Amino acid sequence: MIIKPLGNRILIKKTIIEEKTKSGIVLPDTVKKEQPTIGEVVAVGDGEKVNAIKEKERIIYSKYAGTEIENGGEILILLNMDDVLAKIEEKK
Amino acid sequence: MIIKPLGNRILIKKTIIEEKTKSGIVLPDTVKKEQPTIGEVVAVGDGEKVNAIKEKERIIYSKYAGTEIENGGEILILLNMDDVLAKIEEKK
Amino acid sequence: MIIKPLGNRILIKKTIIEEKTKSGIVLPDTVKKEQPTIGEVVAVGDGEKVNAIKEKERIIYSKYAGTEIENGGEILILLNMDDVLAKIEEKK
Amino acid sequence: MIIKPLGNRILIKKTIIEEKTKSGIVLPDTVKKEQPTIGEVVAVGDGEKVNAIKEKERIIYSKYAGTEIENGGEILILLNMDDVLAKIEEKK
Amino acid sequence: MIIKPLGNRILIKKTIIEEKTKSGIVLPDTVKKEQPTIGEVVAVGDGEKVNAIKEKERIIYSKYAGTEIENGGEILILLNMDDVLAKIEEKK
Amino acid sequence: MIIKPLGNRILIKKTIIEEKTKSGIVLPDTVKKEQPTIGEVVAVGDGEKVNAIKEKERIIYSKYAGTEIENGGEILILLNMDDVLAKIEEKK
Amino acid sequence: MIIKPLGNRILIKKTIIEEKTKSGIVLPDTVKKEQPTIGEVVAVGDGEKVNAIKEKERIIYSKYAGTEIENGGEILILLNMDDVLAKIEEKK
Repeated sequence: MIIKPLGNRILIKKTIIEEKTKSGIVLPDTVKKEQPTIGEVVAVGDGEKVNAIKEKERIIYSKYAGTEIENGGEILILLNMDDVLAKIEEKK
Repeated sequence: MIIKPLGNRILIKKTIIEEKTKSGIVLPDTVKKEQPTIGEVVAVGDGEKVNAIKEKERIIYSKYAGTEIENGGEILILLNMDDVLAKIEEKK
Repeated sequence: MIIKPLGNRILIKKTIIEEKTKSGIVLPDTVKKEQPTIGEVVAVGDGEKVNAIKEKERIIYSKYAGTEIENGGEILILLNMDDVLAKIEEKK
Repeated sequence: MIIKPLGNRILIKKTIIEEKTKSGIVLPDTVKKEQPTIGEVVAVGDGEKVNAIKEKERIIYSKYAGTEIENGGEILILLNMDDVLAKIEEKK
Repeated sequence: MIIKPLGNRILIKKTIIEEKTKSGIVLPDTVKKEQPTIGEVVAVGDGEKVNAIKEKERIIYSKYAGTEIENGGEILILLNMDDVLAKIEEKK
Repeated sequence: MIIKPLGNRILIKKTIIEEKTKSGIVLPDTVKKEQPTIGEVVAVGDGEKVNAIKEKERIIYSKYAGTEIENGGEILILLNMDDVLAKIEEKK
Repeated sequence: MIIKPLGNRILIKKTIIEEKTKSGIVLPDTVKKEQPTIGEVVAVGDGEKVNAIKEKERIIYSKYAGTEIENGGEILILLNMDDVLAKIEEKK
């Protein structure tokens, strides 16, 4: 099935974050646990706040935000744009 | 009797979700329990927010949202559009 | 005495709901208890939100909503329109 | 002294409600206790919401609403119009 | 020093209320305690809501509202106009 | 370093209040503790609400409001204008 | 990776504050703990409230505000502009 988020909502796929940092330092547990989560955008709603975001982009969102939904064996998350904090781009 | 939702409300019929995923993986209980619920739209109000939704469509809504009502042996749910997260379409 | 609701309020008379469904199935207690209540409109205020409702119509409203008032031996309920979820029409 | 309510406030005199109904039925205690209170309007503010109300009229207001004030041996209540639910007229 | 209330605030001097009513009836303690407080206006801010009030007038305000300040041995109260319920005029 | 408050915020320096009143009366402890605090304005933001206030003026603000910051050995307070209750002028 | 804050959000790098003041006075612990935090702006969103802030500037923000995120071994903070209290400029 295809899930179409309504209004100012987006659908994302959660990204597993590597536990070691680039510089090789292992972060203390509290930081790892409190860290917001990164996801890849799967689908976007048609609300105004969604303009800043496109499919395939990676975003940072507030931990505990959103509603999990299972689709074809994959766990996806429906997020309100108010819980999306930033976009991520790879260094060129 | 016929139930006509008022304003930004819709009336839905709850859909039973299959417990096994397409790929055959059985989801852990926590995911199954926290999962939002799927319903089929039976009737819609005349509020502005309802425009995104039509009768017969399937929607995903926040768990615990809405008010249950029994009509002719069937259990229906009156939902506020703010609790409707996404629409569902079958893959073509 | 005549009670005239103010603004976006209506006055209703509570309807007793039959415990058995049309199909003869007896609903579990939790459903019966959580079920919203049905009432017949006795009088309406002059607020904008009341336009959707007319006297004599039957409505569904959120349980625990409204303020009970006794008038001439009858128990009536003063309801805010925000707590009115749907209208009811008989099947033709 | 003369008390002049400000803005969307009114000043009322509480009315004692007869415990027996017209039809002679004695209401159960819970209904009597939860019942809103009836008052006679003594003075009105100059706010817009007060337009629906005139001096000498009787109104129904939410129990526990308002602030009591003593004036010349009489206990009066200063009420916000948001807590006034309905007006009362005698049957002609 | 001179205290100038800002915006929709006023400065008042608390009035001691006589415990016996005009008719000589002694009010029960609960009424005395719950009673709002009377004050004389010392200075007013320049907000829109303050238009209804002038210096030297006596007002009734919600108990526990406002912030006490000491000035030259006198205890004054800075009140937000939202907590001012009514004006008082002497009977002519 | 120079601290520039943003929007409707101001920066103040707390003023020590003399414990004895002009008339020589010692105030009871409860009044002293509940008393709002006086500060001298050090810098102002550029929000609209700040227009009523200028540098060097003394203001009264709600106790417990604001955020303390240390600068060059001095303790300053960043205050939101909503917590500023009044201005103070010396008697001429 | 590059983190781009959305809307009225900024990304900052926390600044370590020297514990001794310029005048050499050691601040009491309570002041040190309650002190807001200083950060250097790394990136800004495109919301209206962000206009007051530029990259490289140092800001004061409410303690406990924002969401920590780790990037390339560095701990950064995503802040809502409502939690940014002031800008800092060095004395010239």
